[in-house]
Amino acid sequence: MSQQAVNGVSHRGKVLTLDSMNPNVKRVEYAVRGPIVQRAVQIEKELKEGVKKPFTEVIKANIGDAHAMGQKPITFLRQVLALCSYPELLEDNMFPEDAKKRARRILESCGGHSIGAYSASQGIECIRQDVARYIERRDGGIPSSPDNIYLSTGASDAIVTMLKLLVCGEGRSRTGVMISIPQYPLYSAALADLGAVQISYYLDEDKCWSLDVAELRRALNAARQHCNPRVLCIINPGNPTGQVQSRQCIEDVIRFAKEEHLFLMADEVYQDNVYAEGCKFHSFKKVLFEMGPEYSSTVEMASFHSTSKCYMGECGFRGGYMEVINMDPEVKAQLTKLVSVRLCPPVPGQALLDLVVNPPQPDEPSYTTFMKERTAVLAALAEKARLTEETFNTVPGITCNPVQGAMYTFPRITLPQKAIDKAKEEGQVPDMYYCMRLLEEEGICLVPGSGFGQREGTFHFRLVH
Amino acid sequence: MSQQAVNGVSHRGKVLTLDSMNPNVKRVEYAVRGPIVQRAVQIEKELKEGVKKPFTEVIKANIGDAHAMGQKPITFLRQVLALCSYPELLEDNMFPEDAKKRARRILESCGGHSIGAYSASQGIECIRQDVARYIERRDGGIPSSPDNIYLSTGASDAIVTMLKLLVCGEGRSRTGVMISIPQYPLYSAALADLGAVQISYYLDEDKCWSLDVAELRRALNAARQHCNPRVLCIINPGNPTGQVQSRQCIEDVIRFAKEEHLFLMADEVYQDNVYAEGCKFHSFKKVLFEMGPEYSSTVEMASFHSTSKCYMGECGFRGGYMEVINMDPEVKAQLTKLVSVRLCPPVPGQALLDLVVNPPQPDEPSYTTFMKERTAVLAALAEKARLTEETFNTVPGITCNPVQGAMYTFPRITLPQKAIDKAKEEGQVPDMYYCMRLLEEEGICLVPGSGFGQREGTFHFRLVH
Ligand SMILES: Cc1ncc(COP(=O)(O)O)c(C=O)c1O
Ligand SMILES: Cc1ncc(COP(=O)(O)O)c(C=O)c1O
Repeated sequence: MSQQAVNGVSHRGKVLTLDSMNPNVKRVEYAVRGPIVQRAVQIEKELKEGVKKPFTEVIKANIGDAHAMGQKPITFLRQVLALCSYPELLEDNMFPEDAKKRARRILESCGGHSIGAYSASQGIECIRQDVARYIERRDGGIPSSPDNIYLSTGASDAIVTMLKLLVCGEGRSRTGVMISIPQYPLYSAALADLGAVQISYYLDEDKCWSLDVAELRRALNAARQHCNPRVLCIINPGNPTGQVQSRQCIEDVIRFAKEEHLFLMADEVYQDNVYAEGCKFHSFKKVLFEMGPEYSSTVEMASFHSTSKCYMGECGFRGGYMEVINMDPEVKAQLTKLVSVRLCPPVPGQALLDLVVNPPQPDEPSYTTFMKERTAVLAALAEKARLTEETFNTVPGITCNPVQGAMYTFPRITLPQKAIDKAKEEGQVPDMYYCMRLLEEEGICLVPGSGFGQREGTFHFRLVH
Repeated sequence: MSQQAVNGVSHRGKVLTLDSMNPNVKRVEYAVRGPIVQRAVQIEKELKEGVKKPFTEVIKANIGDAHAMGQKPITFLRQVLALCSYPELLEDNMFPEDAKKRARRILESCGGHSIGAYSASQGIECIRQDVARYIERRDGGIPSSPDNIYLSTGASDAIVTMLKLLVCGEGRSRTGVMISIPQYPLYSAALADLGAVQISYYLDEDKCWSLDVAELRRALNAARQHCNPRVLCIINPGNPTGQVQSRQCIEDVIRFAKEEHLFLMADEVYQDNVYAEGCKFHSFKKVLFEMGPEYSSTVEMASFHSTSKCYMGECGFRGGYMEVINMDPEVKAQLTKLVSVRLCPPVPGQALLDLVVNPPQPDEPSYTTFMKERTAVLAALAEKARLTEETFNTVPGITCNPVQGAMYTFPRITLPQKAIDKAKEEGQVPDMYYCMRLLEEEGICLVPGSGFGQREGTFHFRLVH
């Protein structure tokens, strides 16, 4: 019964083995940092050691990491962070007054006026106030309360926490969570880890990766046979697909969630990354409230934002927040307790988020530079999106939807049967095989479509701009 | 069966309620930020609003948060962080050369030379190298490999991750995890969340909170009846008890772990916080290796460190690491995959950790100031430990063990029967009642012993120095 009895005393193996570890963790898959990326790191080492390759450096287009791709940090953000890190600099006159003002306000709200103190677990209060005001401005005045804002360690943390709260039941009553295919693999990984049931709904590649409520309904009804569907996750703008949902689509989704009694999770980390003409970002919260009290006072929702994307691209700081709407107050108390176990999100990330939601104003000294830098970054991203789409559509065997937003292209590849057979022979998924060859031969590191999910028999890869 | 069918269509309640949420999360308790602290925050607001109280400010001695208690950050650490945040400062001659050198080295190891890029999920390679060298120096040359180092979001993150990896089985085969009572409540909280079985072993208050292997054995044998004990957690120096384990005790524990086939988790976040004469910090790893290959090549272990404690007290940055020893390579691959789901630990916290493990050297310009500041902080903590112990032992009804290390005192209080009855009348645990009264009447915020666990019928509270 005990490990001891099972293994005998003299030749006991390890306590922790593949067989005796958490089986849910084994089920987790995470392609964005999977075998392709590990091989890329190896190749980089080999290049350093002088091994000859058909290329001199690896181009890592596997992860949405703007700074790693050469984007420069926004001056204002970094000035304030330096001031918060080393407040002696507040005496220096090399920093503009508005940067100093922001730094002083953040420091005053920290324990002992230091970003080295733990903050409240939900996040620093004045930053949550700034987030709430930002949401109000963004959504044309619809009210937002700091009590509903939870700062987080990147959006990843908040998404996992929210899913954890929602999962319960066993067997056929186990919580089912609807996620898009293709998806950002954090979702499938978190669901595997939590032992929740993944309910896949497919985005329509032929209609620019749009979401169709009929497909949601199909997936939901099929899932009702074997689990208890309670959550609907949406990524808008989409990763890896780059689509931007229309206002009409969002309304339809909200109506569906209400009808089917689903908790909505809206991943809106790319809210500033919208490029295509005619496309506009609509927050789920705004649309929800515009649909009237029948919806705005009933539909439960959490929406997520991050400092990692948009024009900032500050991934390393792990800043983010979620806003919860119509959450049962008792559950909210449980959520607050749960986040307190890990003490608090990183304070530098909280500070950074504060600047993102409270940027320089037109009458402040940093405004002009800030706007210039911000505009340049977003324009460069838009241009890259356009170029990538254009280029791919000239390559035989590759077709590519217009990139409306986010930072990715997810083109479809038509693989010759020979390549498919070859991949199978080597025991690899065909698009993984394709990407691995691209890496070995050209030094380009992409993530195969199978890492995000795709319709059976179709193949894709994801490219980061 | 579905939520819809259960609730009927017209009067459906919320999707997410106390009844329909994750039951494991409901079981989580976390007193360090519990009702006492929430009331303290309320009282602070009341004071600000002009409500009259018998005191003018709340003294928060509920959490080990040095900066919040007024400790100043170490200059060198913050200079390098400012340089990393805003590399333009590298041109400024207000910073010492060694600070610049450290900052350059960190930036060069970041994607795009920016701390705003995601790092490798296991942590930045050169920082893991520095951690490994630090461990080697600390442990008198016993080798440490960067491959075994995982940087984390505070020690909390690494501890939870390691526990998650270890938990499996159902019913009587469910993983049991041995934790000390009193304990740091992260452990009980994480076990509740994971649905693992908590196996409590008691520290001996009469022997200065020391750990006795006979008690470990008692707890283990009792637990074997209903679960599968696989993990032994140790906190040394202890929180909340402040004891420092002797070398002999550590040897005994390691021998016990080997005999009983247990995975060891050694929480050593207070490794620099040792004050009492005759006490010395011995790392579990060092003792393990000194016990010879029979132990050092078999006993599986993870040890944890953090930037939050010791002389730095940089809690807000959420820096930390764990070192894994004798971990099955396949399990290590699973661990690496698991940590990749959340992308990476905060890079500013990683940078800070790098400075902690690679501080100024005698021939570097920052050395003198750094050592002066470090020594002053540690001396102040030692003095506070001595004073608290002395003071408490003069108060009738309070007895207090010598504080050997960490940052806490955990005195025992003898409550008059009247007070115990009164508390029960009001439905409160007696020590919670005591602490709540102390808060309301004196403005002092402490955490009751029940939040950490204590022997039935004894009462304590924890005070942070
Ligand atoms: C759709 C989506 N959600 C969430 C995240 C997580 O980002 P972070 O944890 O850095 O905020 C990402 C990162 O790429 C993403 O693409
Ligand atoms: C024993 C012990 N372990 C771990 C932690 C977690 O610290 P952090 O997550 O800030 O590194 C603490 C914090 O107080 C602690 O006391």
